[in-house]
Amino acid sequence: MDQYQPTPPRSPPPALVDGHASNGEKEELCQEAAELDAILRRIHTMAVAFVQEGKQSKSPVVRALSPSELAEQIDFMLPEGGLGLEGIWPLVDSTLKYSVNSWNPRFMDKLYASTNPIGVLSELLLAILNVNVHVYHVSPVVTMMEIQVCKQIGQLIGFGSHAGGLVCPGGSASNLLSVITARNVKFPHIKQASSQEGYRRGEVLTMFTSAHGHYSVDKAGMAIGIGTNQVVKVPCDEYGRIIPSELERCIQESLHRGETPFYVNATAGTTVMAAFDPFEAIGAIARRYNLWYHVDGSYGGSIIFSEHAASMASGLAMADSFTINPHKMLGVPLQCSLLIVHNQQVLCEANAVKAGYLFHGNIYDLGDGGIGCGRRGDALKMFLAWKYYGAKGFGRRIDRSFELARYFANALGHRSDFCLVGPNGTINVCFCRVTRTIHARVNHSGEFQIDHAPLPGKPLFFRIPMHPAIHERDIDALIDTISRIGTTIDEGSLD
Amino acid sequence: MDQYQPTPPRSPPPALVDGHASNGEKEELCQEAAELDAILRRIHTMAVAFVQEGKQSKSPVVRALSPSELAEQIDFMLPEGGLGLEGIWPLVDSTLKYSVNSWNPRFMDKLYASTNPIGVLSELLLAILNVNVHVYHVSPVVTMMEIQVCKQIGQLIGFGSHAGGLVCPGGSASNLLSVITARNVKFPHIKQASSQEGYRRGEVLTMFTSAHGHYSVDKAGMAIGIGTNQVVKVPCDEYGRIIPSELERCIQESLHRGETPFYVNATAGTTVMAAFDPFEAIGAIARRYNLWYHVDGSYGGSIIFSEHAASMASGLAMADSFTINPHKMLGVPLQCSLLIVHNQQVLCEANAVKAGYLFHGNIYDLGDGGIGCGRRGDALKMFLAWKYYGAKGFGRRIDRSFELARYFANALGHRSDFCLVGPNGTINVCFCRVTRTIHARVNHSGEFQIDHAPLPGKPLFFRIPMHPAIHERDIDALIDTISRIGTTIDEGSLD
Repeated sequence: MDQYQPTPPRSPPPALVDGHASNGEKEELCQEAAELDAILRRIHTMAVAFVQEGKQSKSPVVRALSPSELAEQIDFMLPEGGLGLEGIWPLVDSTLKYSVNSWNPRFMDKLYASTNPIGVLSELLLAILNVNVHVYHVSPVVTMMEIQVCKQIGQLIGFGSHAGGLVCPGGSASNLLSVITARNVKFPHIKQASSQEGYRRGEVLTMFTSAHGHYSVDKAGMAIGIGTNQVVKVPCDEYGRIIPSELERCIQESLHRGETPFYVNATAGTTVMAAFDPFEAIGAIARRYNLWYHVDGSYGGSIIFSEHAASMASGLAMADSFTINPHKMLGVPLQCSLLIVHNQQVLCEANAVKAGYLFHGNIYDLGDGGIGCGRRGDALKMFLAWKYYGAKGFGRRIDRSFELARYFANALGHRSDFCLVGPNGTINVCFCRVTRTIHARVNHSGEFQIDHAPLPGKPLFFRIPMHPAIHERDIDALIDTISRIGTTIDEGSLD
Repeated sequence: MDQYQPTPPRSPPPALVDGHASNGEKEELCQEAAELDAILRRIHTMAVAFVQEGKQSKSPVVRALSPSELAEQIDFMLPEGGLGLEGIWPLVDSTLKYSVNSWNPRFMDKLYASTNPIGVLSELLLAILNVNVHVYHVSPVVTMMEIQVCKQIGQLIGFGSHAGGLVCPGGSASNLLSVITARNVKFPHIKQASSQEGYRRGEVLTMFTSAHGHYSVDKAGMAIGIGTNQVVKVPCDEYGRIIPSELERCIQESLHRGETPFYVNATAGTTVMAAFDPFEAIGAIARRYNLWYHVDGSYGGSIIFSEHAASMASGLAMADSFTINPHKMLGVPLQCSLLIVHNQQVLCEANAVKAGYLFHGNIYDLGDGGIGCGRRGDALKMFLAWKYYGAKGFGRRIDRSFELARYFANALGHRSDFCLVGPNGTINVCFCRVTRTIHARVNHSGEFQIDHAPLPGKPLFFRIPMHPAIHERDIDALIDTISRIGTTIDEGSLD
């Protein structure tokens, strides 16, 4: 038996004044433990107050300041001599005061919102562990969590019992890793040999993605050196979904140009319209032309946890790889992104360069399958949230997002002064109303934080993602606010 | 005047039992704030106990278990129904119990160690903010912190008043971004046009790095599609430093083969020997051949804060870009990596694809300069640590690492049963002693966690990085432990 005892449920250590223990328990705490104790004691109150403020309907989402105004409120200059603990608190206070409070349900700007208490706990745990998941022996528990999270997500989408994957630092990184993996699997010589060799063989690589797909796929094409022109944008239907026959046409045109199509990206939840591509039809085409089939579920991939949304996920099992960002719809803290494949070994076989000082031959050393070396243990955050809420709890969050979007679209449908953009039925609500000017005034007021978005051939419009923390009354209030500000604007002269 | 008041220095909110407030203040707290309150109250004690355990000389660095043994202790299966808050605590307890305790000064395995109390505070603050630094308007304060941290690091190394940079998710990502930026600056047509165009122009791109350089430079060469064979390894001297005349010979051979050299990577603190390349001499060669000059300071770049180590940093100002990971020598929590350039605009000009839904034209929107989209606000962690310790405090940490390494090398020099590998004078200590077997036994015992490393042409040896939290008594104990275990091993039959 070893010496470890679970933490006894006693009260916290004694209060500390100016960094020193105020009573006889001082000896018990080493200096760093005592300092951590003092810090946690103080931030506790501030953190709870910040969340409470976010939940109060009268509090601003943000006190919007320009960079120069902000620099008048906070001293950003970094000193020669340290300020110590007491010098830090005014800064922590200002950081909270002037940051966006994403716990506020009227933060509707981006595809994420606040995290939740279990999310904060997870980050605190990661901070204390300061864990690096490059190799098993320095991160045994979190490595096992990563393996399990990837395996069970893979099984949910039908990738089978060998499913696995890797934590990546964001959806763009997951997508980039899918592209590099695809290229290295299909053209292993490019891993080592100069691409000149590849070009001698006539390999002009071409990728395909939706005209509504995320720009990270373009960046990946740029990064791997084939150029963004070789990332072909497939036309979409009015719902923002890839038209399968158009995909096939694009592939055939590429072949006709003498190129080598190798990769197609479909999207589960596009950034602007939250469209879900027809995964089965695209999968059939990918098989026919022997393309690596990736599904970018950075935004909407989390619908796999909802029974009600299951039909939108149909066909995901045909994909070779799948990106999911639990930091968006599921409220896991930023960032938590996973690239899932049918067999975890594929990643190492495709990407390893086997640095001898780090990797000693343990198959649980996941790090060599990615692009990075040191990796944050972000899987822990998804693992704890899953244990806490269960797959069913995640599913209820997803269902709530769809319910709110239906409510919102329905409310707009009854107003003559708004026009919906595109058909609905998914988790973003898009609509027009002299957008640019209203956007600036709404956001500056701090009442809401919302965003506008473009689509080719359409005027600028609002794009509001439906985070499950939003309430119907927030939606009503947003419509009223936009309507009120809109009546003060001369529509002819603006936007 | 707005409504915000700095958090009053009152005691924490009332204790909660089973998620419900136990007294009349219940109404005051929204449900999420109450839950966060309960969670912080409980993790507080566990966190402080974990740090205390790490600092006790008899406590294990890790209770080393194999994956299957660990799976007997922790239920890694993820449930359909949620366990809720009470179900989480045994898991949190086990996670702490079976993870590596990097607060223990006898964790000497990797180039990082524990963070510190201000680091934990920083991560907690990031968790509460759940901040994404892609664009200014959703992350005003942290964006300003990122700009300031990058600017002042740039100024420290002589990059001038326009210096800037970007937070990247780790040193490998920073190095990869330097490679992509270099290629896009020097060959802007490759950004869009098929590389076939490039190859028609005769561009077979070649990169140069140290034979002792980090494998992320190989991975970057693989990622951008030039292949690892086009990443030329320059021979090093006995200190592990690039030999400048060898670099010039390699460049000339590449030119002779008709290639296009475009990038050279020097290292400030190589992974194994912690060597610092001769930056001025390499800079002169880079200028002569018009190469992008990058310095990978992922490990040792933090010496820029030390006056005593200034001579090792001489010539950094000649670099075009510089990677620094404050999460290694400076104890900022994993991960915190920055790519620094002479002018922040260079990154956006080189890498932007200008996604319209995200970027509305604000030059403070840093995100488009990188490869990713969403980004963690890791700069906040460096910012707070810098305010707390000051540049001078960082410098003292660096000096302490050098002091410990001198002590260690000196102690080994007096022992006939150890042999030092390579000359010393830097922050890793490398030595031989029937390495593989001793390594396994030492790490399994939990007394220390240490690592071994290879170098071409040398037998396996130990590589011990000197984290400033280590004490001389830990070094003495490590030497004794290795010596004791070594006497029990038949040297002829092993390693």
